[in-house]
Amino acid sequence: MALLALAHFMYQMVGATIFQMLEKEAEDHNHFQLEKLHFLANCTCLDGLHMERFVQVIRDSSKVGLSLKGNQTMDSFWKFTSSAVFAATVVTTIGYGNMSPSTTAGQIFCVFFALFGIPLNMVVLNRVGKYMLAIERNACDFIQGKTNHRKLTRFMIHLLSYLSGTALFFVMPMVVFKQQEGWSYSQAIYYCFISLSTIGFGDYVADSNPDKYYPEWYSILMASWIFFGLAWLALVINHTGEILERLNTHLKHWWSPEEPS
Amino acid sequence: MALLALAHFMYQMVGATIFQMLEKEAEDHNHFQLEKLHFLANCTCLDGLHMERFVQVIRDSSKVGLSLKGNQTMDSFWKFTSSAVFAATVVTTIGYGNMSPSTTAGQIFCVFFALFGIPLNMVVLNRVGKYMLAIERNACDFIQGKTNHRKLTRFMIHLLSYLSGTALFFVMPMVVFKQQEGWSYSQAIYYCFISLSTIGFGDYVADSNPDKYYPEWYSILMASWIFFGLAWLALVINHTGEILERLNTHLKHWWSPEEPS
Ligand SMILES: [K+]
Ligand SMILES: [K+]
Repeated sequence: MALLALAHFMYQMVGATIFQMLEKEAEDHNHFQLEKLHFLANCTCLDGLHMERFVQVIRDSSKVGLSLKGNQTMDSFWKFTSSAVFAATVVTTIGYGNMSPSTTAGQIFCVFFALFGIPLNMVVLNRVGKYMLAIERNACDFIQGKTNHRKLTRFMIHLLSYLSGTALFFVMPMVVFKQQEGWSYSQAIYYCFISLSTIGFGDYVADSNPDKYYPEWYSILMASWIFFGLAWLALVINHTGEILERLNTHLKHWWSPEEPS
Repeated sequence: MALLALAHFMYQMVGATIFQMLEKEAEDHNHFQLEKLHFLANCTCLDGLHMERFVQVIRDSSKVGLSLKGNQTMDSFWKFTSSAVFAATVVTTIGYGNMSPSTTAGQIFCVFFALFGIPLNMVVLNRVGKYMLAIERNACDFIQGKTNHRKLTRFMIHLLSYLSGTALFFVMPMVVFKQQEGWSYSQAIYYCFISLSTIGFGDYVADSNPDKYYPEWYSILMASWIFFGLAWLALVINHTGEILERLNTHLKHWWSPEEPS
């Protein structure tokens, strides 16, 4: 446990240092933008109080997904389809946060909705994951019956199913997102991973740009991608967890073979 | 499986409808704010293009956590402590998104950091959860040795540990957040649940208001709260999942006792 806790702590500290290193340089850019803001503030006829109020309005409107470009009339943000997407981000614990309940009643309901919705979703995704594993095992049995290299076949099937999952849930969506959302490949792969790992920063959210028109099939593809992708990545992450757990046991034996920690 | 999938689907649809009902009325308010924005736009000397650029600057600066009130010089956003908090929101999959990597290198590193960090964190939290269960079991054994009502004692201990967890991870932080962040009780409890369930919308984030000064002990309390609270709520959610799984099995038997679905 002590070794594991130490590894966890070190991992965090190293990660924090690297994030800081990588993102510090981008901050100068942001500082430049703040300068620009001050400059713009000086050249308008807005005084301090009006300015602050104006900034608040823009931030609030940004939170509820209103487009500020042009004068087009917007769809309602809490229309049924986006409510359904929001409900899905709650039960999957992705929680992009581009939409979130602002009323007290909505917030209280959200807590109870999540309290039962998250376990329910977990149970369903576990089932889907088990079906996926069953398909893999059937393929394994089928091919192993026709060959003598049993261990090699097993390894190849594992590798193949891992690669096909990566292609289906990362490479294919990446191409679609690049085309539909206008993101770069690295932004698209970052979005895929951040979504399927249920981190869901909400810095990039597909199918939610109020200035874009999306084709009909896009929402359905998105929903299937999230649903099966979550089940698949949960399998992969659980598998990685098991490997780490085994590694920890091995290391502990190797570290102190006589004294149990 | 079919029954479970149907229940899941119905749950989503009902949830989406209720969210829509609850949040629709708040939208009129937002529409009013948009009107205000148009009004403000008309009374300034900014033309359309400058206006859009100005809005973009405000939104970007909001993303990187810059305070726009007054002229105070800001701390760096990616200082080490906030980087560490960010790394923690990645591995716990909370992902508030109030900070997120903006550089390509940062985004790619974030993917790999999460790929190993999430399983590692899961393993550590599982251990912590097991220790918590062990404490409960020891208390159970200790008290059961002194009484005859074994089943009642077991139930009481379960109830007591559940209630003390709620007090420790919801009621106590709620009071602290109300005082430190100036949130209402309902907002504070909403924040507690959204954080510990790892949804993490990021609409409320403690210890991150650039216009507030926080005491020294606040970050440490936050970190312990998240760490032990996550382990505890994971236990509760897993337990709820098991109950749902058992309920599903019971219902299936009751629904179709002769034909296996
Ligand atoms: K999340
Ligand atoms: K999130």
